[in-house]
Amino acid sequence: MDENVIGVYESSAANELTSEFVDTIHLALDQNETAEAKNLAQSLHYADLADLLENLAHAQRQELVEALRSDFDPNVLAELDDTVRERVIDQLGLSQVAEVVAGLDTDDALEVVEELEPQEQREILESLPVGERALIEEGLSYPEDSAGRLMQRDVVAVPLHWSVGQAIDYMRDTENLPTDFFDIFLVDPRHNPVGTVPLSRVMRTRREIDLTQVMRKHIKIVPGTMDQEEVAFLFRQRDLISAPVVDESNRLVGVITVDDIVDVIHEEHEEDIMRLAGVGEADDLYSAVIDTMKSRFSWLLIHLVAAIIAAYVISFFAGTIEEMVALAVLMPIVAAMGGTASAQTLTVAVRALAMKELTMANAYRTIGKEVAVGVLNGVIFAVLIGAVTWGWYGSPALGGVIGLSIIINLIVAGFVGSSLPILLQRLGYDPAVASSAFLTSITDVVGFYVFLGLAASLLL
Amino acid sequence: MDENVIGVYESSAANELTSEFVDTIHLALDQNETAEAKNLAQSLHYADLADLLENLAHAQRQELVEALRSDFDPNVLAELDDTVRERVIDQLGLSQVAEVVAGLDTDDALEVVEELEPQEQREILESLPVGERALIEEGLSYPEDSAGRLMQRDVVAVPLHWSVGQAIDYMRDTENLPTDFFDIFLVDPRHNPVGTVPLSRVMRTRREIDLTQVMRKHIKIVPGTMDQEEVAFLFRQRDLISAPVVDESNRLVGVITVDDIVDVIHEEHEEDIMRLAGVGEADDLYSAVIDTMKSRFSWLLIHLVAAIIAAYVISFFAGTIEEMVALAVLMPIVAAMGGTASAQTLTVAVRALAMKELTMANAYRTIGKEVAVGVLNGVIFAVLIGAVTWGWYGSPALGGVIGLSIIINLIVAGFVGSSLPILLQRLGYDPAVASSAFLTSITDVVGFYVFLGLAASLLL
Repeated sequence: MDENVIGVYESSAANELTSEFVDTIHLALDQNETAEAKNLAQSLHYADLADLLENLAHAQRQELVEALRSDFDPNVLAELDDTVRERVIDQLGLSQVAEVVAGLDTDDALEVVEELEPQEQREILESLPVGERALIEEGLSYPEDSAGRLMQRDVVAVPLHWSVGQAIDYMRDTENLPTDFFDIFLVDPRHNPVGTVPLSRVMRTRREIDLTQVMRKHIKIVPGTMDQEEVAFLFRQRDLISAPVVDESNRLVGVITVDDIVDVIHEEHEEDIMRLAGVGEADDLYSAVIDTMKSRFSWLLIHLVAAIIAAYVISFFAGTIEEMVALAVLMPIVAAMGGTASAQTLTVAVRALAMKELTMANAYRTIGKEVAVGVLNGVIFAVLIGAVTWGWYGSPALGGVIGLSIIINLIVAGFVGSSLPILLQRLGYDPAVASSAFLTSITDVVGFYVFLGLAASLLL
Repeated sequence: MDENVIGVYESSAANELTSEFVDTIHLALDQNETAEAKNLAQSLHYADLADLLENLAHAQRQELVEALRSDFDPNVLAELDDTVRERVIDQLGLSQVAEVVAGLDTDDALEVVEELEPQEQREILESLPVGERALIEEGLSYPEDSAGRLMQRDVVAVPLHWSVGQAIDYMRDTENLPTDFFDIFLVDPRHNPVGTVPLSRVMRTRREIDLTQVMRKHIKIVPGTMDQEEVAFLFRQRDLISAPVVDESNRLVGVITVDDIVDVIHEEHEEDIMRLAGVGEADDLYSAVIDTMKSRFSWLLIHLVAAIIAAYVISFFAGTIEEMVALAVLMPIVAAMGGTASAQTLTVAVRALAMKELTMANAYRTIGKEVAVGVLNGVIFAVLIGAVTWGWYGSPALGGVIGLSIIINLIVAGFVGSSLPILLQRLGYDPAVASSAFLTSITDVVGFYVFLGLAASLLL
C-alpha cells in the first residue's frame, strides 16, 4: 500500500469499508465488471481488503482474487482469517504464494507458512532466498503458539557502551532495520539483552549521554519457548510496547511487538469463549458446514452422555413420577436453576484463573464465597419457587420439597462450579474445556436426585 | 518506581511476584512484621504490587496499605481492579488520594477519578492544580467508555511545514512532553491532524527532510466521542500503536496509545464472556458476597421464568406422562441437546457480530449454514438417541419419536441461535445479553412440545 506516498494532505484518502462500499463491490462482481471491482478493492487499506475477502461468498471471492492475482498485496494474505487464507492460497498456487511470502516481514511470513501442509511448507521454503528461509525455518523450530513464532527477527540492538549519538548514527546509516520499531535493545558482548531505551527517550537525550544512563533496566525478557498467552499477560501487566526474545543461552534473537500481542489476546479470548460453549477452534463463519458440524459433534456427544446419566437417575423414580406427575412438570425448573447458577460460577472462576487473579492463595476464600452466594440466592429462589409451586398445585409440602432442592442445588453449583476448574487447572487440564459438561451433569444429577428423592420419601 | 535508575546492569533487579514471594508476604503480615512486608512490597514493580494487593484478604490488605500509606505509589492505584481500588481509596482518605492522583498521567488520573462518587470527585478535583483539574474535567465531559476518557492529553504535535530537524530540536527542548510516545502528529494551522510520523521514521530520516515527505497520511482519526470498543477495533485492524483524538471541530485534543487499548480489549472481552453467562459487570473475585449475589440474581430470575414457561408446556401433557412415565425420564435428553446446540450457535454468532465478521451481507448465508449443521447433527444424534431409547425401553416407536424431536430441536437451535442475535443487534440490543435466556426458553419449549406432542399423538 502507498501509505508512504508524499504530498497530498488529506488524512483519509483511502476508501473505507462501509456497507455501501461492500454493496458496490457485490454489484460489480455480480455484473462481471471485474476491472471495476478490482479498482475498488485496491483502493482499500490491506486490512480492509482482507475483511472484504472474508465477507464475500466463495464464488465472488474467487473472482476477486483472480482479478487481484497479478499484484496481490502480501499484507492481505497475512491479515486473512486461517480458513479463508487456506482457500486463497489454494487458488493462488504455491509459486505465487512463495512470491507473496517473500514480500512479508519474517513474523508475518511465519504466520502464513506455519498453517500450510508440510509438503507445501517445503516447497515454499525452497523457493525463498536463503537468508529469509533460514529465519523462517528457525521460527518453525519453536513450538506452536510460542514467543518464537511471534517474534520479528530484525532487531535494533546496540552495544552497551554506546552513546545516544552513536545509536542515532547507527540507525540513520543501517539499511536492514525493521520498518517500525519502538525500543532500542542494549546487549552485552555475549549478545544478552541488559536494557532497553524507548525511542522517545533517545530522541530527547543529548547525543553525548551514554545509553546506559537512560536505559530501563528492569526489563522483561521473553524466552523463545514461552507460551504466547504468558507473553500476552506480561505485555498487558507491564504496558509493554515491545519486548526482547532470547534463545536458550539468553542471546537476543528477536523482538515481539504489541500489535502481535493484540492479536494473541484476541485469539486467546476467542478460544476461552468458544471452549466454554464447546465450540472447536476451527469453527468460524468461514468454515464449511461439514467442518462446523464435526467441531460441534463431540461436545454434543459429551452432553448427551451427561443427559443420559441424568435420565438414568430419573428412571429410579419412575414410580414416584407416575404417582405424582407434577414432579415431571417441575423437574426442568430444578435443572434450570442449577445449570444457570453453575454456569455463572464457572465463568467467573475460569476467567479469574485465566487472568491469574484466582490462585492457590485465595482459592479457599473464593470457594467459600461462591458457596455463600449459593446459600443466599438458594434461599431467595427457594421461597419464590416454593410459593409458585404451592400456588400452582395447592400443596405446601410440594413447595417445601422443591424449595429445599433448589437450596441444595445452588450450594452444590457454587461449590463445584468454583472448585472444579481450580482442581482441573491443578491437574494440568484446561478448566474452560473440561468443566462445563461435567458441571451440568453434576447439577442435573444432584438436582433430580434430591428433588425426586425428597418427594419420594416425604410426599408419598 | 525506579525504572530509570542509572548504572546497575542486571536486567531484572526488581523482585518477581512468585507464589513463594506471596507466601513470604503472607507470613510477614501474619506475624505482624509490617516493616518487612512493606520492604518486600516496595521491591515489586507497581503492576505486581497491584496484583499482590488484589490477592490479599481484606484485613491483610488493609495492614499493608497502612504500611505503604506514607509513600503510596500512584501507579499502583491506577493498576488496581475497580472493587479493590474503591476500598483502598476509602482507606487512604480523600486528601491522600488527591495527592496520589496529582502524581498520575491525565489518562490514569481520569480512570481513578471517574469511578468515584460525585461528591468525592468534586473534593479531589478541587484539591488538584488548576491545569490538571481542567484537563480531567474535560475528560469527564466525554461519555463513559468513550475515546475521550481514554486519551492522554499531552501530545507531541508539530506544524505541518516543519522539517525532521525542527521536530527533533523541539522534542529535545520541550519539557512538558509525555513520558513515552511513539508518533509525532502533524497539524495544520487550525490544529487539525493531517498525518503522523512514527518516531522510528523520524530517527532514520535526515534532518533537512520535510516531515510531510515521510508522514503517513492515511491515518485513522478518532473522535473523542467514539466508543472505546470501536477504537479497539481500529487499533487491532490497523495494527496501530497510537492514534490522534479530535474534538467536534476536528482539533487535536489528545492521543490514545495501544497499552490502554490492550486493557480495553480485555475489558470488552470480559464483558462479552460474562454477559453470555449472565454475570454482572461488577462480579469479580473481589466483590462482596452480597454484590455477587445481586449481580447473579436477575439472570437466575430470567431463567426461572423461562423454566416456568417450559414447565407450563409440560403440564399440558401431564396425562400423557402419567400413562408413559418414560417420557419424563427422557425429557432432559431432548432439552440438553437443544440447549447445547443453541449455546454453540449463539456463541459463534455473538463473537462474529462483535468482531464485525457477521454483517447483513452474509447474514442469510450464516443462518443457512447453521440450519444445515443442525440438520446434519440432528440426523446423527437422532439415530444415536433413537437407538439408545429403543434398547432401553424396547420400543422402536418411542425411539422414533425422540429421534424426530431431536432433529427438529437441533434445526430450531441452529436457526434461532444464529438469527436471534442478528435480529437483536439490528434492533439495537446487545446480542450477548439478550439472546441466551430467550434461546434456552425457545429450545426447551419447542423440544418438550414436539417430544411430548408427538408421543401423545403417535404412541398413545
